[in-house]
Amino acid sequence: MTKLDELIVRRIRNGTVIDHIPGGQSLNVLKILGIRGGEGYTVAMVMNVDSRRLGKKDIMKIEERELAPTEVDRIALIAPEATINTVKNYRVTKKMKVKLPDEIKGILNCTNPNCVSNKYREPVKPSFIVASRTPTLLICKYCGTYITHDEVVAQYALAG
Amino acid sequence: MTKLDELIVRRIRNGTVIDHIPGGQSLNVLKILGIRGGEGYTVAMVMNVDSRRLGKKDIMKIEERELAPTEVDRIALIAPEATINTVKNYRVTKKMKVKLPDEIKGILNCTNPNCVSNKYREPVKPSFIVASRTPTLLICKYCGTYITHDEVVAQYALAG
Repeated sequence: MTKLDELIVRRIRNGTVIDHIPGGQSLNVLKILGIRGGEGYTVAMVMNVDSRRLGKKDIMKIEERELAPTEVDRIALIAPEATINTVKNYRVTKKMKVKLPDEIKGILNCTNPNCVSNKYREPVKPSFIVASRTPTLLICKYCGTYITHDEVVAQYALAG
Repeated sequence: MTKLDELIVRRIRNGTVIDHIPGGQSLNVLKILGIRGGEGYTVAMVMNVDSRRLGKKDIMKIEERELAPTEVDRIALIAPEATINTVKNYRVTKKMKVKLPDEIKGILNCTNPNCVSNKYREPVKPSFIVASRTPTLLICKYCGTYITHDEVVAQYALAG
């Protein structure tokens, strides 16, 4: 093992390990977490490695970062089978499996500008029914507009 | 070493290893290479690990991908001390150190819309003098406009 490899595999003291991300989605997970590089977080990741369950998957370790519940919910939308382990003092203290609920409230906006959930005067929070989990397909509860996986990712990119 | 770690450190059969990327710039290197995840390349990377030379650095391994000379030139603009190793059949067959030339021609556009290099009727290729290497600062040869590191990265993002 080279010195570089040692850096990559070192056990993290405190932080988060996200596994079972669908192949190629890890850059979108970084967007959700607001990590562009300059924040200084030490991150190790692999993209598109073989996985029995997913075909190809991504894995990510982030040091000194715990995930907020809203971040876990967002990750569920693009990585519905992800597992998230929290590490403290070199020990896994929490194992989570993300769960995409049947209904998504308030995280995303409807892409239809005329949807009632996009009118500032209406006290209506955007809300979507989960029609498919892999790939993600949501249906707006108010106007029936379909939100695809790519549109979910695009909203994260703008928000990041 | 866990099974995940083995995946991360496995030697690559064919591909490219980029080391000495300034801390946090690896996502911009991926942009330069047009890698968003969905292309299927197997990539391993670390961000913001300790480096004697750079303080913090990023390292990246990309399987089954060789870099074109124009890609190496672009990487030089944001990672002027990067080393690029080409691997074939598990052996390093080429070691390159990127080199930012004193003058950059044709890779970037001037940010001044009125610059002669942005007029379609003029047969003038954009051209910049390298005023600083770390961080990158370029000066347009024609109109004197400064191009900062962030503006270089923004042009890559649009092109990607």
